[in-house]
Amino acid sequence: MPDLRIADVRVTPIAFYDPPLLNNAGCHQPFALRSIIEVETEDGVVGLGESYGTSAVLGGLAALAPACRGFAVTDLNGLWQRTRETLPPGSDVRLLLRVGGAVEVAMWDALGKATGQRVVDMLGGQVRARVPFSAYLFYKFAGHAGEAADDWGEVLSPEQLVDEARRMADEHGFRAIKLKAGVLEPEAEVAGLEALREAFPDSPLRIDPNGGWHVHTALDLLPRLEGLVEYLEDPTVGIAGNAVVQAATDVPLATNMYVVEPSHLPPNMAQDGFRVILSDHHYWGGLKASRDLAEICRIWGLGLSMHSNSHLGISLAAMVHLAAATPNLTYDCDTHSPWQVDEVIEGGKLRFEGGALRLPEGPGLGVTLDRVALARLQANFEALDYRDRDDASEMRKHWPNWQFGRPKF
Amino acid sequence: MPDLRIADVRVTPIAFYDPPLLNNAGCHQPFALRSIIEVETEDGVVGLGESYGTSAVLGGLAALAPACRGFAVTDLNGLWQRTRETLPPGSDVRLLLRVGGAVEVAMWDALGKATGQRVVDMLGGQVRARVPFSAYLFYKFAGHAGEAADDWGEVLSPEQLVDEARRMADEHGFRAIKLKAGVLEPEAEVAGLEALREAFPDSPLRIDPNGGWHVHTALDLLPRLEGLVEYLEDPTVGIAGNAVVQAATDVPLATNMYVVEPSHLPPNMAQDGFRVILSDHHYWGGLKASRDLAEICRIWGLGLSMHSNSHLGISLAAMVHLAAATPNLTYDCDTHSPWQVDEVIEGGKLRFEGGALRLPEGPGLGVTLDRVALARLQANFEALDYRDRDDASEMRKHWPNWQFGRPKF
Ligand SMILES: [Mg+2]
Ligand SMILES: [Mg+2]
Repeated sequence: MPDLRIADVRVTPIAFYDPPLLNNAGCHQPFALRSIIEVETEDGVVGLGESYGTSAVLGGLAALAPACRGFAVTDLNGLWQRTRETLPPGSDVRLLLRVGGAVEVAMWDALGKATGQRVVDMLGGQVRARVPFSAYLFYKFAGHAGEAADDWGEVLSPEQLVDEARRMADEHGFRAIKLKAGVLEPEAEVAGLEALREAFPDSPLRIDPNGGWHVHTALDLLPRLEGLVEYLEDPTVGIAGNAVVQAATDVPLATNMYVVEPSHLPPNMAQDGFRVILSDHHYWGGLKASRDLAEICRIWGLGLSMHSNSHLGISLAAMVHLAAATPNLTYDCDTHSPWQVDEVIEGGKLRFEGGALRLPEGPGLGVTLDRVALARLQANFEALDYRDRDDASEMRKHWPNWQFGRPKF
Repeated sequence: MPDLRIADVRVTPIAFYDPPLLNNAGCHQPFALRSIIEVETEDGVVGLGESYGTSAVLGGLAALAPACRGFAVTDLNGLWQRTRETLPPGSDVRLLLRVGGAVEVAMWDALGKATGQRVVDMLGGQVRARVPFSAYLFYKFAGHAGEAADDWGEVLSPEQLVDEARRMADEHGFRAIKLKAGVLEPEAEVAGLEALREAFPDSPLRIDPNGGWHVHTALDLLPRLEGLVEYLEDPTVGIAGNAVVQAATDVPLATNMYVVEPSHLPPNMAQDGFRVILSDHHYWGGLKASRDLAEICRIWGLGLSMHSNSHLGISLAAMVHLAAATPNLTYDCDTHSPWQVDEVIEGGKLRFEGGALRLPEGPGLGVTLDRVALARLQANFEALDYRDRDDASEMRKHWPNWQFGRPKF
């Protein structure tokens, strides 16, 4: 029988190229920060994880990593106990879930590789062969400040948005389309959605202003959104504010901003705030916690979709295993993958077919680390002059008078 | 790597001796009906489960068993899909959870035995070395109708109740004491509790009328119960009725009657009905569903204890593994084990030390089947002239004019 005890946990901070994508908080910086986690067992089996690369998460992982030695890769209770013990007293539960969750995924991968099981099987069994994803549209600048245009070019008008969607659909076959909003005047963004509807009459549409709209704005726009979108994501701020919007419409409201940890679930259920939860194993505390969340959504009759941040292939593989094991994943998942040019897994980026991914083959997550790529992406990180994401400062390099507001419009 | 596919599922109905224990529904019959489930993998590894032996559950298991062949013991999603497919259309979800859950436990045991892992580890890791149980007191007749007195004798008075508790405590070391009530006049039962308090000043006490009291009776008794019991279990009927009682007291109300499947959780949370859930993997749908329930209790701030029916050692081992893997098990578990004289596992009954059990040693559940005992208990079943539990008819053999009522008092 394999020795499942953890011998070592290694954390490598990385940075990868990210296009100038816009959102309510500003503009993506030229490099996204990320961390690669390796959990090695006493038998030398290595499990992989990928998570945030912010200073808080990297600090938490640095404290947690040595405390993981000696306990088994199955011991999730032990992981959370040690995560609580090694984070500074009074740490935010959101940090706790991010730090522990980053290691948790690598523990599942190690367990699977050590025992010849796929992660999807250990999470309850595969219920779908293909995991469908949505086209994730962003308004964007042509290029980063002071740099040449990238090959997507500028996207600020409805016509440019339709072109972006068409390229996404042509290259990857996505069916559902999501528009990241909260950037331009809401009227202009809904006009963009309407142009998408005309160009893609059969595509389920979504819009996500990231809490950027006032309640009255969201209420005013409801007549145009009803019949147009399959869900309305975080139109305004907070559970209570969104509950006012939800009470006024049959369009389900979705969130990845205000129901983002277990303690948010009871008030959301009590207030009928959001009717769709966008899960994300990176901030809910890993794969087990995400399966728990799915079960809670099933019991309470909520819809379930999947949120994404800028990520590479280890995260994507974990998302696919999780989604393939979740019977009640009621909407296509989000992914930033089409926006990324870098990769950290061997064989390069996972390829979408008809907008969907099949499970990578092999035990665990089915992916292995490309150590040459890892070294390159680590060198990117070392060379950067920032250690935390700051979309607002980046935005002001393009629009100097830009001010953050949530709600803003 | 082991071949984890299921080659065969065997179900053996058994019956074991049960004393004449009283409850709101009547009196235990001389034999309790049960089923032993064996899940055998393609490699010949056998996992064990134990569940109800009612005709409905045995019928469901007979239909499900052949449909299990070919899928992996990890495939819980596949199990539930097949359980839905093989039960008659329109079957009660409670039957579905009982039937699927019976096989689910045996799948975990088989997986553990095949991969060298204990069930507690696969459920998230061991958080306690000892799992504490409560002394489960019953009013009882001296012997079954037409039979001699058993060695517990009659228990109908406060003095006899104290004697019963003392024997339980002396033999097994239990600390918490639970009184099965709803049998006598409520005043007499609370007098019994008060006698227990006097004899055992440090023992947490519980009383469980099984919904036998009217709301006004429960409300009237609250002043005597407050400060006396750690929780009040199912005093009256339904979530709404118990919510009226809960609103009138700080004593938490507990249930294993009205929140017994996932769909009961939302209304319970919305109405603040019960603040403690007694989990039971036999009717919640197995070990995974019970861990999910525990997590929901943690998130919503509910207490968690564990319910028991008349059972043998496979069920008890599963309860211990589950309890040992559940951080927020906030009360000592119930068990009928002290009332049983038969056993179906090798080595005989698990032995309590200081009221607690340690995990049986070895992979999976850590117990193996005593096939000689199994054959004897199966012969018991074959010889019986009943196929379903009927406490009411049994009760009328002792008290001919007894009538069922819920609420009754
Ligand atoms: Mg969002
Ligand atoms: Mg009860």
